[in-house]
Amino acid sequence: MNHTLRQSHLFTKTRKEAPADEVSRNAQLLIRAGYIHKEMAGVYAYLPLGIRVIEKLKDIVREEMNGIDGQELIMTSLQRKELWEKTDRWNDQNVDVWFKSHLATGGEVGFGWSHEEPIADMMRNYISSFRDLPIYVYQFQTKLRNELRAKSGIMRGKEFVMKDMYSFSLGKDDHDVFYENATQAYKRVFDRIGIGEDTFVTFAAGGAFTQFSHEFQTITEAGEDIIYINREKNIAVNEEVLNDDTLADLKVTKDELKKVSTAEVGNIFNFGTHKCEELGLTFKDSKGKNVPVWMGSYGIGITRLMGVLVEKFADSKGLVWPDAVAPFDYHVIVLDNGNEEVRTDSERLFNEMKVRGMSVLYDDRDARAGEKFADADLIGIPKRIIVSEKTLASGEYELLTRSTGVSTFIHEQELLSD
Amino acid sequence: MNHTLRQSHLFTKTRKEAPADEVSRNAQLLIRAGYIHKEMAGVYAYLPLGIRVIEKLKDIVREEMNGIDGQELIMTSLQRKELWEKTDRWNDQNVDVWFKSHLATGGEVGFGWSHEEPIADMMRNYISSFRDLPIYVYQFQTKLRNELRAKSGIMRGKEFVMKDMYSFSLGKDDHDVFYENATQAYKRVFDRIGIGEDTFVTFAAGGAFTQFSHEFQTITEAGEDIIYINREKNIAVNEEVLNDDTLADLKVTKDELKKVSTAEVGNIFNFGTHKCEELGLTFKDSKGKNVPVWMGSYGIGITRLMGVLVEKFADSKGLVWPDAVAPFDYHVIVLDNGNEEVRTDSERLFNEMKVRGMSVLYDDRDARAGEKFADADLIGIPKRIIVSEKTLASGEYELLTRSTGVSTFIHEQELLSD
Repeated sequence: MNHTLRQSHLFTKTRKEAPADEVSRNAQLLIRAGYIHKEMAGVYAYLPLGIRVIEKLKDIVREEMNGIDGQELIMTSLQRKELWEKTDRWNDQNVDVWFKSHLATGGEVGFGWSHEEPIADMMRNYISSFRDLPIYVYQFQTKLRNELRAKSGIMRGKEFVMKDMYSFSLGKDDHDVFYENATQAYKRVFDRIGIGEDTFVTFAAGGAFTQFSHEFQTITEAGEDIIYINREKNIAVNEEVLNDDTLADLKVTKDELKKVSTAEVGNIFNFGTHKCEELGLTFKDSKGKNVPVWMGSYGIGITRLMGVLVEKFADSKGLVWPDAVAPFDYHVIVLDNGNEEVRTDSERLFNEMKVRGMSVLYDDRDARAGEKFADADLIGIPKRIIVSEKTLASGEYELLTRSTGVSTFIHEQELLSD
Repeated sequence: MNHTLRQSHLFTKTRKEAPADEVSRNAQLLIRAGYIHKEMAGVYAYLPLGIRVIEKLKDIVREEMNGIDGQELIMTSLQRKELWEKTDRWNDQNVDVWFKSHLATGGEVGFGWSHEEPIADMMRNYISSFRDLPIYVYQFQTKLRNELRAKSGIMRGKEFVMKDMYSFSLGKDDHDVFYENATQAYKRVFDRIGIGEDTFVTFAAGGAFTQFSHEFQTITEAGEDIIYINREKNIAVNEEVLNDDTLADLKVTKDELKKVSTAEVGNIFNFGTHKCEELGLTFKDSKGKNVPVWMGSYGIGITRLMGVLVEKFADSKGLVWPDAVAPFDYHVIVLDNGNEEVRTDSERLFNEMKVRGMSVLYDDRDARAGEKFADADLIGIPKRIIVSEKTLASGEYELLTRSTGVSTFIHEQELLSD
């Protein structure tokens, strides 16, 4: 990805209005600022600015997954009916988000809304002995889900990018160690993108095999979940499992908990040996006995996370990106008013930043200051550098921080040494 | 992506046999070497080694597309029926590779086998004046095609990765300039991955609007196409358009042409104003008149390209990757025979290479020399470094080049300065 871009070359333009049928604030802002395009309800394309945010999120998640020995791969969208029948999840009564179609070669085919079954099934080729374990794999996959409701913009789509990781372990002890490693890696991801403080490891429904699963829930008014938190005790409980038993387990009273709206940005799930028993994924232990593999899954919704960042940080003027995922670090804006010296200076500055490998969107358009500032506010790049007759006269550039609105002046030397 | 990997951590293992139903040589080798997994006929997952090759191919293509002012985005897999009806391409009689399904919210939905229609339609939001043109955009998209025949491994799948670029120009002159730029960019891509000499810009059927399109055809016995070439005159013609008129146009006789089997690795296509007229994509020219946009499309099959590289370069022992796309540059193999000094030296060498940012797969497994060499031959990394009692005694490492089989000796100093 190029680290600089002239705004005059960017094909997207800011828009005054989002489509009338778009009800979510994150999608409205992202469409207006030119990050995404709405193809249909719950289905969005990612435009040049948007794909940069996605790739930055993926890079952060990738680093943390590699850091806990994850190996990246990419499974397929097309799914075999016979495989999902083994776990009784082909049935539309049990899974209500399938898209299904017919193969020209005969038979039905599904489109991947999850990849637990095909990954476990594939591992039968690579796991036979205890020596083959543990294995941790992850992917960034476009999931397709036939959602009935899609009113939260990119926070809940029919088509979205997810990072899903899977662990295959010898047994409960090894599994628990990795589960904790994954939890810590997830915390680092959320810390790095600026939502660590407001993201809680939350007790949630565990399904057939375990009492609880863990969700990572981030406080935002736009969220679809309700959880109960206690910051001091570092406890968070999804309302779906808030009952007397849970309160007793967690040694907390309901009075000590505060109700908040949240969005689920990640989840980790323990299958025990259940899934691998169903699918026949076993290994020979040191005594030669066949034992089913212990499996876990660990998800982060990448596009959802982008939506949560919009909802949490945007203000009345537009988007406000955390430094770590902004499409560019700097937005250089030239206000030349027809003054060629100013234009020459901004071109020179842009090139100096470019050769240093700095990340810059350069607003080189012939447009009025008001329009440029409104666009920059909407686009939300963290640091704005203004080049004008005033800055040329003073020998310093104006530096405006998008999140605070605070303006200072900065010497070129200092700027270029960033 | 990490630049080093210990082979003992790699979950894939080489396999003696590919699945019995796999008839294509590229898929057989890639499955045996652990690059891909067959999910069903024509549908393959990409495992850790495979995804590295894909990402390297994408990076090369991305650089060249950025170099001709392409802007990256990503469209959606889900497709609107109403849009494709406008160009009469929803109909299964006209397009026989659609996967279609039903939305839970009502109505039919398609899965993207091409993205010409949605991209042109989206551009109606961003193109209104001649000042908005030209625009060049591209994506790496997983295409879904309901193919009846899928017997060429990853060279023709039901699910595959394609780079598709689209140009939107003011008129024929501007279009022609970009068309030539794109042709040159494609040639650079094929040169960089080592198939430039055997890849021909080929006259092919042009469809309704133009006499010819251009295909990039690469000579390989595994190809599904037949073309006629003359290397001296730099002429290539797809047999589908080889007739007296074409020969006269190209000023060549049939005797001067040689018949070869090829695989199509790229194509470029001129829509003129036809597609944009159908979809209502127009701009106001300098006189205020509404004029349809001139459109072109430019494809490179990324996963197909990977298959072609396998077919062209593999030998009887296994895969042979061109340097530019190999999953790793070096394959360091330790043959310690229980000698701790050898193991210590190989660990030290691996770490030295790692800190220098060199790209290394390190075969640190406890396995016999014969097994390690057979695996390395199958996996096909360009340069192999052997660390053994012999090399420890000589003070030099053995360097074997996979493509030639030639073995030399190299000082550590020289190796580390690569």
